[in-house]
Amino acid sequence: MNSSVNTPEQHADTPLVHPVHKAASTVLVVGSVALDSVETPFGRADEVLGGSGTYFASSASHFAPVQVVGVVGSDYPVDKLAPLEKRGVDLAGLERAEGTSFRWRGRYRHDLNSAETLETHLGVFSHFAPKIPEQFRKAPFVFLANIDPRLQLQVLDQVDSPKLVACDTMNFWIESRRPELIELLGRVDLITLNDGEVRQLTEKANLVHAARWILDRGPKHVIIKKGEHGAFMFTRESVFFAPAYPLEQVFDPTGAGDSFAGGFIGHLASTNDLSDLSMRRAVVVGSAMGSFAVEKFSNTRLLEIGHDDIERRVQEFRQLVAFDSPLNT
Amino acid sequence: MNSSVNTPEQHADTPLVHPVHKAASTVLVVGSVALDSVETPFGRADEVLGGSGTYFASSASHFAPVQVVGVVGSDYPVDKLAPLEKRGVDLAGLERAEGTSFRWRGRYRHDLNSAETLETHLGVFSHFAPKIPEQFRKAPFVFLANIDPRLQLQVLDQVDSPKLVACDTMNFWIESRRPELIELLGRVDLITLNDGEVRQLTEKANLVHAARWILDRGPKHVIIKKGEHGAFMFTRESVFFAPAYPLEQVFDPTGAGDSFAGGFIGHLASTNDLSDLSMRRAVVVGSAMGSFAVEKFSNTRLLEIGHDDIERRVQEFRQLVAFDSPLNT
Repeated sequence: MNSSVNTPEQHADTPLVHPVHKAASTVLVVGSVALDSVETPFGRADEVLGGSGTYFASSASHFAPVQVVGVVGSDYPVDKLAPLEKRGVDLAGLERAEGTSFRWRGRYRHDLNSAETLETHLGVFSHFAPKIPEQFRKAPFVFLANIDPRLQLQVLDQVDSPKLVACDTMNFWIESRRPELIELLGRVDLITLNDGEVRQLTEKANLVHAARWILDRGPKHVIIKKGEHGAFMFTRESVFFAPAYPLEQVFDPTGAGDSFAGGFIGHLASTNDLSDLSMRRAVVVGSAMGSFAVEKFSNTRLLEIGHDDIERRVQEFRQLVAFDSPLNT
Repeated sequence: MNSSVNTPEQHADTPLVHPVHKAASTVLVVGSVALDSVETPFGRADEVLGGSGTYFASSASHFAPVQVVGVVGSDYPVDKLAPLEKRGVDLAGLERAEGTSFRWRGRYRHDLNSAETLETHLGVFSHFAPKIPEQFRKAPFVFLANIDPRLQLQVLDQVDSPKLVACDTMNFWIESRRPELIELLGRVDLITLNDGEVRQLTEKANLVHAARWILDRGPKHVIIKKGEHGAFMFTRESVFFAPAYPLEQVFDPTGAGDSFAGGFIGHLASTNDLSDLSMRRAVVVGSAMGSFAVEKFSNTRLLEIGHDDIERRVQEFRQLVAFDSPLNT
C-alpha cells in the first residue's frame, strides 16, 4: 500500500521504535540455522540463509542485542552469516558440527498461504543438543524457536531466571511430543502458534476457547498468528488484534512467523516494558517485521531496512486501524 | 470475550452510536424477504425470517428510518414482520404476489465458514421487478442488496439522486451477469463483497490489486468482507481494517454480511457524515452488528439488542485494536 495507507492525516506521535541502544536487554534465541531452497510464483532461490534462528535474529537485531544458539554442519557457508555479525548478533553459541547442514526445500503455489515441503534434510540438526554458553545464560529475554520440546526444556534448565520466555512450536511436535509440550507450557510466559496449530493442540475450533485452554496451562500470553489475516494476543484480561499489513505482493512467506517473533521480543527487550500496552505495541512491531520479511527471499529485506522504514510501517498500521483518535478531534 | 475485551482502561469517549433521531436520513433497501431453514452444529431452525432485506432492515433500523422494497408470496407469514414494523421499518414497498415465497435451506458444518445450500426455492422472487413507491424515491441512502444486477440497475432508474448508493452481489451474478455488474459499478458509490467474490470478479488474488481494479470502475469505496477475519475498506487514498469480534460462539452465520451492511449504512444515515473518519466508524458499527447477528438464529439477536449493547460492543472493538491512544498517555 505504501503511499495509500499513509493518509489520512499522519500524526506526529512518539515513535514506537527505537534504534538499538545500551538500555536494551539482551535476547537469546535457540533455533535452527539452515539452508533454504524456495520456489514461489515469482522466482526461486537456492541454498539461501534460512532457519528460525536466522529469521528471528535478523529481525530482533533491529531492536536489541541478540545471542544465537544453534548448530550448522561443516559444509555451512559461514560467510553468509557475516551480515548478521555485522549487526551485532552474537554467534558464539552457534556450534559447528561434523556433517551436513539442515536443509529445507519448499514451494509456494499461487495463493502463497501454505508451503509445500519438497524435502527436509536435518543433517547435524538431528543430533542437536543446545548448550548455552556461560555468557548467554543471563539473557533477560529468551525465545525458544520451533525445535523439539525436549530441547526447549533443556534450554530452560540452563538459563538463569529470564524476565520473559517465549516459545514457538509446530504440528509435528504437537503430534509427537505432546506431554513434553504440555510440560513446556507450564514453564514459558508466552507461546506463539498459528491458527491451525492452536486448534490441533487444544482440539478446540473456536480461538477464544483455544486460547483459554492454553492460558489454563501456564502461559500468561498466547499469540495466535493467522498469516495474511493478522494476529491475536490473548491474556486472561484482554484480547488484542493486529491486522497483517495489506502488501501488494507477498514474495516469499518463509520466515514470516519467526520475523514476527523477532520484532515482538525485540521491542520488549528494547523497552524493558512488559505492560499490556507495551505487549500490544510489540505485536504491531512484530507484524511490521513479518511484513518486511516476506517482501524478498531469505532475510534479505530484513537486513536492508532501517529504523525509519520500520517506524513508517508501524505508523501505517496505526492508520490502518484508526477510527477514533488521532482522527477523532 | 465480553468481560475480557473491556479491559484495559475503558475510556469515556464520545459514544459512536446514537439512537435513531429525527436528524437521521432515511435508508432504502431493495432485497429479499425469505423463509430460511438452517442447520448448524448447535441446532436447527425452520421457516424463520430470512433474506438480505430482512437482515439489513433489522440492523439498520437501530440507527435510521428504513424503507424496504421486496416481494413475498401469498403464503408468507406476514405477522412475522410485525416486530420490524414496530421498529419503524416501512414495509410499504413489500409487494405480496400470488405464489410461494422465496425459501432457502442451508447447513453449516463445524467450522461455520461456509454455508452448504441444500435447497433454493425462488418462488415469486423469480419474477421480482422492484417498484419503488413514490414516497421512497427521495431516500438519501440506498442499499441494493444481493439481487440480479439488472434489477439493481432498474432501482437506480427509479430513485432521485441519493447521497450514497451501495450494492452487494454474489458469485452467481458475477458469473452470469458480468456486463450488467460492470455497468452497475459505474453507478454506485460503494460495493461490499466477500474475499472470494472480489477475487472472482477481478480475477486478482491480491486484495490490494483487486480493490484497485474495482475503484477504477466507479465505486469510491470497496468493502471486502472476510468473515471471521474481519473487513477491509479501500478508497483511492486509504485503507482501513476492522477485525471481526472474537466471539466465543458463532451460532448461525446467516445474514452476517447484510447485518454488517445495515450497521454500516445505518451509521452513515444517522450521522449524515461521509467523511473518511465517519466511513471508518461505519465499518466498525457494521462489524458490531454482524457479530450480533450470528449469535442467534434469524434476526432474533438483532431485534433483542439495544443502543447500550451496540455501544458496548463498539467500545470493545476500540480496545481490541488499541495500541496507541487511549492507552498511550
